[in-house]
Amino acid sequence: MLIVKKFGGTSVGNTERIFNVAKRCIEDWQRGNDVVVVLSAMGKYTDELIDMAKQVNENPPKREMDMLFTIGEQMSVSLMAMAMNSLKVPAISLNAFQVAMHTTSVYGNARLKRIDVERIRHELEQRKIVIVTGFQGINKYDDYTTLGRGGSDTTAVALAAALNADACEIYTDVDGVYTADPRKVKTARKLDTITYDEMLELATLGAGVLHNRSVELAKKFGVQLVVRSSLNFSEGTIVKEDTGMEKMLVSGVAADADSARVAVVGLEDTPGVAFKLFNLLAKNDINIDMILQSVGRHGTKDITFTCSDENADKAEEIIKNNIGKFESIDVNKNVAKVSIVGAGMQSNAGVAAKMFEALYDENINIRMISTSEIRVTVLIDEQYTERAMNAIHDKFALGDR
Amino acid sequence: MLIVKKFGGTSVGNTERIFNVAKRCIEDWQRGNDVVVVLSAMGKYTDELIDMAKQVNENPPKREMDMLFTIGEQMSVSLMAMAMNSLKVPAISLNAFQVAMHTTSVYGNARLKRIDVERIRHELEQRKIVIVTGFQGINKYDDYTTLGRGGSDTTAVALAAALNADACEIYTDVDGVYTADPRKVKTARKLDTITYDEMLELATLGAGVLHNRSVELAKKFGVQLVVRSSLNFSEGTIVKEDTGMEKMLVSGVAADADSARVAVVGLEDTPGVAFKLFNLLAKNDINIDMILQSVGRHGTKDITFTCSDENADKAEEIIKNNIGKFESIDVNKNVAKVSIVGAGMQSNAGVAAKMFEALYDENINIRMISTSEIRVTVLIDEQYTERAMNAIHDKFALGDR
Repeated sequence: MLIVKKFGGTSVGNTERIFNVAKRCIEDWQRGNDVVVVLSAMGKYTDELIDMAKQVNENPPKREMDMLFTIGEQMSVSLMAMAMNSLKVPAISLNAFQVAMHTTSVYGNARLKRIDVERIRHELEQRKIVIVTGFQGINKYDDYTTLGRGGSDTTAVALAAALNADACEIYTDVDGVYTADPRKVKTARKLDTITYDEMLELATLGAGVLHNRSVELAKKFGVQLVVRSSLNFSEGTIVKEDTGMEKMLVSGVAADADSARVAVVGLEDTPGVAFKLFNLLAKNDINIDMILQSVGRHGTKDITFTCSDENADKAEEIIKNNIGKFESIDVNKNVAKVSIVGAGMQSNAGVAAKMFEALYDENINIRMISTSEIRVTVLIDEQYTERAMNAIHDKFALGDR
Repeated sequence: MLIVKKFGGTSVGNTERIFNVAKRCIEDWQRGNDVVVVLSAMGKYTDELIDMAKQVNENPPKREMDMLFTIGEQMSVSLMAMAMNSLKVPAISLNAFQVAMHTTSVYGNARLKRIDVERIRHELEQRKIVIVTGFQGINKYDDYTTLGRGGSDTTAVALAAALNADACEIYTDVDGVYTADPRKVKTARKLDTITYDEMLELATLGAGVLHNRSVELAKKFGVQLVVRSSLNFSEGTIVKEDTGMEKMLVSGVAADADSARVAVVGLEDTPGVAFKLFNLLAKNDINIDMILQSVGRHGTKDITFTCSDENADKAEEIIKNNIGKFESIDVNKNVAKVSIVGAGMQSNAGVAAKMFEALYDENINIRMISTSEIRVTVLIDEQYTERAMNAIHDKFALGDR
C-alpha cells in the first residue's frame, strides 16, 4: 500500500509531538507500506514570520511573503526526517522545488497544476519515508508560491492523486466528522463515512475539519480521504463518493454563529436593483451567503441577505453611500445559521418540513430559509443555536447508529 | 558597473541593521549600477537551528542539516527584499534553486561547481536589486548543500566571477585589513591594498577577515575584492593580484594563541616513523601546523609539532595508544604563533633575521620556526604574544605610511 499522511501545525508543534507523528508513520512503514508524509509549518511559526515581515514592511510584496513563508514547512520536514533517522528509519525531506510541485503564478493563493512524482517514487523505491512540505509550490518563473487556506490538505490530496495512493489520511485534533459539534450536542455521534458532497456542505458551513478545496480535489480525482485524530487511534471518518446502498437521510447538523443579517427595506422596484447591490458588495470583497427578496409596501421591494459579522457594518456603510433610494437598512448580528446536510435528501421529500417541525416544537422562530440539493439552512436568533441543534439532532435520531 | 556586495550575519541581525544594509545597496543602485547582494543567515540564527536539530537527533544526517540550515539565508534575503521594497526600490530574493548554484555533492562542505546567471541577469535587466542566499547550493540530486565555513564569502566571489562583476565588496565589522590586530598593537595601520597571497597567509594565521576559500577563488578568477566595514564609509582594503611596483617587504603581523606544541621525545630512528605518526593524526582529523624533527639522544629522534589547543590532548592520547616506542610526550598549550607576511620577502634577504632580532631585543625565546615564501612564523610563550607583535611591528615600521 502507498499511504499519504498529512499532519497539521499543532501535530508537529514540539519535540514530543514530532516524535509522536514520526512513530505513527513508522508503524505503517514497518508493515511494509510506502509512506509519504505531508507537513505544515510548526505551531504558530507562520504567525511569527508574519510579525517579522511586518517589522520591515507593513505591506510586503506577496512574492517575498511566499519566499518567507515556505521556510516554515522546510523546517518541519527537515526536523521530521532527523527524528525518524534517530529512530533508525531512513527518511528524506523534500521541498516544492525538489518534488516539484507546479502551481499557477498567483502568490499567496496559487492552485496546484501538476506534480512531478519521479523523485518521490525514486525515494520510495529505496524504502525511505518521504516527507513533503505542504502548502507550497513553485510557479513557471521558478518562484515559491503558497496555496492559501487549507493548503497542506490540498497538497496531501493532490499527492495522493498523482501517486495513485491507496489511502490519504488527514490527521487533525478531532476524531473525525460528527453528526454535530460534540461540545454543543451531547448525543453527537462520529460518522464512519460521509460523501464528498456532504463534506463540502459541512466544510462551507464552518464544521471545517477539512478545507473545501481539498475535498473538491479529492472528489475530482476520486481520492478516498480519512479524517482522523493524531492524538489517538480511533478509526476516523472516511470521505468518499458513495457511502453505500442507503444514503443517510441526514448525516449532520452544523451551526455558524458568525452570521449577520442585513435587511434593506423599501428599494425601488426597478430591474437591476439586486444586480447593482450585490455587484457592489462583491467588488468590495464582501461574501454574501443567503439572499431573500420580497415585495415591500407601496410598490417597493425589500432585499435581505446574510454575511459574516465582520463584514456587516462595512456592507451597511457601502449600501448607504452608494445605493440611491431606499427606506431603511437594518443590521442584526445576533443571528446564527443552522443547517442539516445529507445526500439522501435528494430523493426524500419532507426532510425540510421535519427540520422546521423540530424548531416549531421548541418555539424557535425561523427568520430565513435557504436550501441546496443536499442541505437545508435556517437563520434563527443566535441565543437558540444549541437548543435548535439538539432538537434537530434528536428529531432525525442522529445519535442512534 | 555591476557590483556584488556581501553582508554577514551580524550586519542583518535586526530590523535597523537590515535597513542600514538596504540603504547602502540602494545608494549604489541609484547611481545607475547593477547591484547583487549576498546575505548570510541573521545573527545567531544558525546556532538556533542547530539547537532545534539536536533536540530531535544528537547526530542528524548532514543532508537534513543542510535542508534546515538553508532556511536561515532564505529568511534574510526575503526580509531584505521586503525592506528595499518598503523604500520603493524594486528588489527580488533568490535561493540556491532559483539561481541556480550548482555544487559538489558533499553535504555540509560542498564546493561550488557552476553558477547559472540567466535568472540574475534577467532580474538585473528589469533594474531590480538581486538578493542571493549565501552559503548554500544544490547538488546533482537536486538537494540543498552548504559550503562550510566562510561559505557566504565564497558565494559572493563566485557570483562576481560568474557575472564578470566590476567589484566584489565583502562587508564585515572591521574597516579592512590591518598591519596587525589594532586591539593588540596600538600603532597598527589599515592597509590600502594587499595581494591574494598575503591575504591567504593572513587568513590561515587567524587574522581572518576573509576565509581562505574565498581568497583562493578570487585569485583563481582574478576577482578584485574590497574588504570594508558595514558600520562606516571607510575605504576598506583592496585585495588584488599585485599591489604595485614596489612590493611591501612585510605587510602585516598576525598572532594565533590557539596553538599547542606536542613534543614526542626519543622515537626509534627508523624509516617511516614520521610518516606513521602524521598519517595516524590525519586519519583522526587532527590538523598539524608546524613540524620540527631533530636528532635525539642515543640514536633516537624527537618530533615536535603544533596543532590547535582543542586537538592537543586527543593527539597525545592517540600517540600514546598507537605509536610503539618512545621515551616521553609533552604537551604545552601555553604557546602562540606569531607571523609576519609580505610578498616582498621573496626577493629580499634578511627579513627573518630582522624579525628574530626584534624578539631577541625583547628577550623573547623562539621555540620553533616555520617559513613559506612570503611568511615567517615563530612559536613563542603565549604570555609574550602582544609584546612580540608590537616589537616586530615597530621593527619593520609598519605603523608608518
